[in-house]
Amino acid sequence: MPSIAPTERIRIVLARPSHTGNIGAAARAMKTMGFADLRLVAPRHAPDAQAAALAAGAADVLEAARIADRLEEALAGTVLAAGFSARTRDLSHPLRALRDAAPELLARAQEGPVALVFGNETSGLSNEELGHCAMQVAIPANPAYGSLNLAAAVQVACYELASAAGRFAVGEAGEREAATSEDVEALVAHWESAMRESGYLDPARPGRLMERLRRLVARAGLERAEVKFLRGMLAAFEARMRR
Amino acid sequence: MPSIAPTERIRIVLARPSHTGNIGAAARAMKTMGFADLRLVAPRHAPDAQAAALAAGAADVLEAARIADRLEEALAGTVLAAGFSARTRDLSHPLRALRDAAPELLARAQEGPVALVFGNETSGLSNEELGHCAMQVAIPANPAYGSLNLAAAVQVACYELASAAGRFAVGEAGEREAATSEDVEALVAHWESAMRESGYLDPARPGRLMERLRRLVARAGLERAEVKFLRGMLAAFEARMRR
Repeated sequence: MPSIAPTERIRIVLARPSHTGNIGAAARAMKTMGFADLRLVAPRHAPDAQAAALAAGAADVLEAARIADRLEEALAGTVLAAGFSARTRDLSHPLRALRDAAPELLARAQEGPVALVFGNETSGLSNEELGHCAMQVAIPANPAYGSLNLAAAVQVACYELASAAGRFAVGEAGEREAATSEDVEALVAHWESAMRESGYLDPARPGRLMERLRRLVARAGLERAEVKFLRGMLAAFEARMRR
Repeated sequence: MPSIAPTERIRIVLARPSHTGNIGAAARAMKTMGFADLRLVAPRHAPDAQAAALAAGAADVLEAARIADRLEEALAGTVLAAGFSARTRDLSHPLRALRDAAPELLARAQEGPVALVFGNETSGLSNEELGHCAMQVAIPANPAYGSLNLAAAVQVACYELASAAGRFAVGEAGEREAATSEDVEALVAHWESAMRESGYLDPARPGRLMERLRRLVARAGLERAEVKFLRGMLAAFEARMRR
């Protein structure tokens, strides 16, 4: 049985979106985090040029988006639907923070498709829509103004799931080679010698100058190329001082 | 000495933004996560009606945004600048994932303002701009398409910092009162009795029916009001069966 990456089992459902730009921006947000299954429930307008413009490089996700008349259709085949809403309801599921819910959403996605359901830009998810969801998830936000843009909420949800899955790593810095302790010792000795020669370091009254220098150098986490550059500079100072 | 919430010490710096809509959307993203200090470096256009429209309820953040000619001005007073870029450079800082970097950013914000620096929509941060930053941070993303919209990147960064700071909690579900074990036992007994009366449960061949029911009821985590509703329903079935 082939193993299925749980992120391929995450479906983003936008219920009654008003603005096509948000549909496109949501497609872009999904693709940046590796998700591709987008469903639209009764959008006010079908995706148009504005949607395509905001989808940018995620035209494939936008074009493959399926439109349903009712939420039940968009949820067909899912094993779990999580409704995104920060509003508490009289009759409600327990409200869970996105970060707490993410591991469970990924675990359930091993069993089958899991839907993340987002409501209309202005009114959010209705009680009826939330009733189709087995879980209510909130993105913790400023109580004085917690209104995330729809695509921004999709971006945060997809980011959280991709992070919880450990899906993507960040690149390595190129050409980085850390200096060895010998490199650093040689640099510090060179630096000390140059400071003596300049008169800035008085061997009779050294104070804590060398201690400060060592601490700074240790904290900087120098690269080999940086040690080379610094020693070149010190050599140039020395040469100039000797003229 | 009053304690300073580290999130008040986070400054969002947009370097050379091209689209005023993104400036407004970034202001909105910031405010939803409790941040307010926005700086613009040489924006192509000053914030306009499009910026205000996308700022939505964050007009205050947008209006208070300060414009600088050069990045150094926008960083004045900061103790740390973190440049957001996923691109590795020949001469670069070690690249750190946002989630790993967040605790350190918050810790440094205890010492003074910390800037999160975002580059132009198309070209990102230049090497020169990144040179003013002490740290390079990346939002882990799809290697096949990792291009987050500018405001979406600001939203994710602000979400991650607010989450790492544990700044906001999600609300409690209203009116929720969990059923006690006595409530649940009485419900299960009632249910069993109704199923016997209907003939669905045959005492001579009970199979695992009650075991299944108990497991389902336990997993559902019932509320008291739900127990009451279910027992009312069972009573109605019983009454109807007896007619």
